[in-house]
Amino acid sequence: MLDEFIRTAVKNIKDYVPGQNPQKPGVIKLASNENPFGPSPMALEAIAKASSNLQMYPDQKSILLREALAKALKVKEDNIIIGNGSDEIMQIAATTFLKPGEEVIIPAHTFSLYELFAQLFDGQPIIVPLKDNEQDLEAMAAAITAKTKLIFVCNPHNPTGTMISAAKLGAFLAKVPANVLVIIDEAYVEFVEGKEFPNTLAMVKQRRNVLVLRTFSKYHGLAGLRVGYGIAPPELIKFMFRVKPPFNVNRLAQTGALAALGDKSFLDKTYQNNLEGKKYLYAELDKLSLEYKKTESNFIFIDVKRPSDELFLQMMKQGVIIRPLTSFGLPEAIRVSIGTTEQNEKFIALMKTLI
Amino acid sequence: MLDEFIRTAVKNIKDYVPGQNPQKPGVIKLASNENPFGPSPMALEAIAKASSNLQMYPDQKSILLREALAKALKVKEDNIIIGNGSDEIMQIAATTFLKPGEEVIIPAHTFSLYELFAQLFDGQPIIVPLKDNEQDLEAMAAAITAKTKLIFVCNPHNPTGTMISAAKLGAFLAKVPANVLVIIDEAYVEFVEGKEFPNTLAMVKQRRNVLVLRTFSKYHGLAGLRVGYGIAPPELIKFMFRVKPPFNVNRLAQTGALAALGDKSFLDKTYQNNLEGKKYLYAELDKLSLEYKKTESNFIFIDVKRPSDELFLQMMKQGVIIRPLTSFGLPEAIRVSIGTTEQNEKFIALMKTLI
Repeated sequence: MLDEFIRTAVKNIKDYVPGQNPQKPGVIKLASNENPFGPSPMALEAIAKASSNLQMYPDQKSILLREALAKALKVKEDNIIIGNGSDEIMQIAATTFLKPGEEVIIPAHTFSLYELFAQLFDGQPIIVPLKDNEQDLEAMAAAITAKTKLIFVCNPHNPTGTMISAAKLGAFLAKVPANVLVIIDEAYVEFVEGKEFPNTLAMVKQRRNVLVLRTFSKYHGLAGLRVGYGIAPPELIKFMFRVKPPFNVNRLAQTGALAALGDKSFLDKTYQNNLEGKKYLYAELDKLSLEYKKTESNFIFIDVKRPSDELFLQMMKQGVIIRPLTSFGLPEAIRVSIGTTEQNEKFIALMKTLI
Repeated sequence: MLDEFIRTAVKNIKDYVPGQNPQKPGVIKLASNENPFGPSPMALEAIAKASSNLQMYPDQKSILLREALAKALKVKEDNIIIGNGSDEIMQIAATTFLKPGEEVIIPAHTFSLYELFAQLFDGQPIIVPLKDNEQDLEAMAAAITAKTKLIFVCNPHNPTGTMISAAKLGAFLAKVPANVLVIIDEAYVEFVEGKEFPNTLAMVKQRRNVLVLRTFSKYHGLAGLRVGYGIAPPELIKFMFRVKPPFNVNRLAQTGALAALGDKSFLDKTYQNNLEGKKYLYAELDKLSLEYKKTESNFIFIDVKRPSDELFLQMMKQGVIIRPLTSFGLPEAIRVSIGTTEQNEKFIALMKTLI
């Protein structure tokens, strides 16, 4: 029965490997780059007030949230589409644009859903190796053929935390033909410290062939609510709207995200804590002579030069959950979310005994 | 640029037409079959307690909710997949099973998303006319060809509220080949009064080729939360899991639905109110000599024998929003949700002046 029933693409898909969740109280999770301060308090307040209307369908177009985002980002509302997480925007983009057999260029060792959606919708994933653990834009440009339709760029890069500069991204985009869409995943953009980060929203305003992805999961502390968004020229957004299920973003998600957007003190605290956490971790990892990447995000990539699955299990026993990068194809590296001062100290104390 | 970018299927899709939402206080919405008593109070309570963990990703597999549903429905957990609304389950089913060019049999004048998802994933929708405003299962069976892959059945039927009996569905399924999947949308099942309603869960347990869809949007009052689910043989559910984005059901949706499932007094009140509302509406519509269908759901189909879009506008001006069935291809009929006693009375009072 199954051979007739299931699409071939589906049979070839691997299961997604999520970060492990704490099974008992007191365990620290530094595995999924969630906000160590919890959700935005203003989001919680807004959700409490909104819940009495839950019997009604949500706004199909997330109008209030798109208005607020447009104002905050200085783009137009018709540049924005809201998704049930930014992964839904990837899915919508693949459904809207990708024809069977078209090629999708994806950096190696990155967020696994790029490849999953490419496969699922019968695209041909073209995986381009990293260079010094960073996305190799020259090689990615060289991989473009007449069949290329989508290119995924992750900036800052998950799992290395490194950034592609405006100059490098500009040089790359100059080589991308107009009939290829570049999807730039900026899930961690709010944590960027580097001055040379590209202004991709300006590119959207110039109607370039880019789709920028952002999320409320990290900086705003709302991973559990599932709100992400895409920013692109209106000609593309319009068709993506047709593809999205009408009520894809739930009421509390729309309400919570809207409130979180204006939660300045929470967001400032989140940014500051991340800056300080970075400095502390750099200093301590240097003392341990461990190789790591300077990060532009809220996590840090460490080359532990030993099987990271083992280290993960050892650390979990001691109450700290990190992300071994085996599922990213990097079995000797780990990704650790930057936590509160106390969490970072506990992680370092454990590293001292285990490395 | 667009002709190269957008998939042909997407260009041909029509926009979804939702029920109108109230724009000012005091307006009664009887357009989207939402629960007139609001959301389940136990769901609200559970949501209030759950919101402090919103920074964390939701459970990828909705384990607690699937356990509770399995117990309540007397099926196994591996028979169940949870979606961001049952429309996401339709989308997942199309992505999992439908190959380009395969035919999808759909009754005419029904919930529009069946056709949308068939088109979107390059299927060939085969629309079978209704007979006396009911799904014509004989004609649907006769429409099966070697290319048929999916058949949508809506039971009770949206927008007529009528039911297909166990005997009729059984006779139909006996004609469906084993390599065709029948998707039975039971969004309104909890409101059914008729004794002859089919036991589709027993068919799932016998590993028949059916996928049953249900939702928390209607009976449980949680349309704004987006929780629906599919029940099917585990061999099919397993592959649908691969297709669903990992974190498709948000934390509050999982929590709220779980609590609503056990909210007996709210659910009983909802059912009783619906029974009484039906009787009242039948009696009043009889007095007005209006043609309507006896309903097994929480809405009633009325043939107003005049342009329903006009009636809709007239009623909206007077503070009652109903659903003109123009977007269903039935421009002289309306669908009215059964509300509270007060809401039903207001609707009837308006009908008396406008018909």
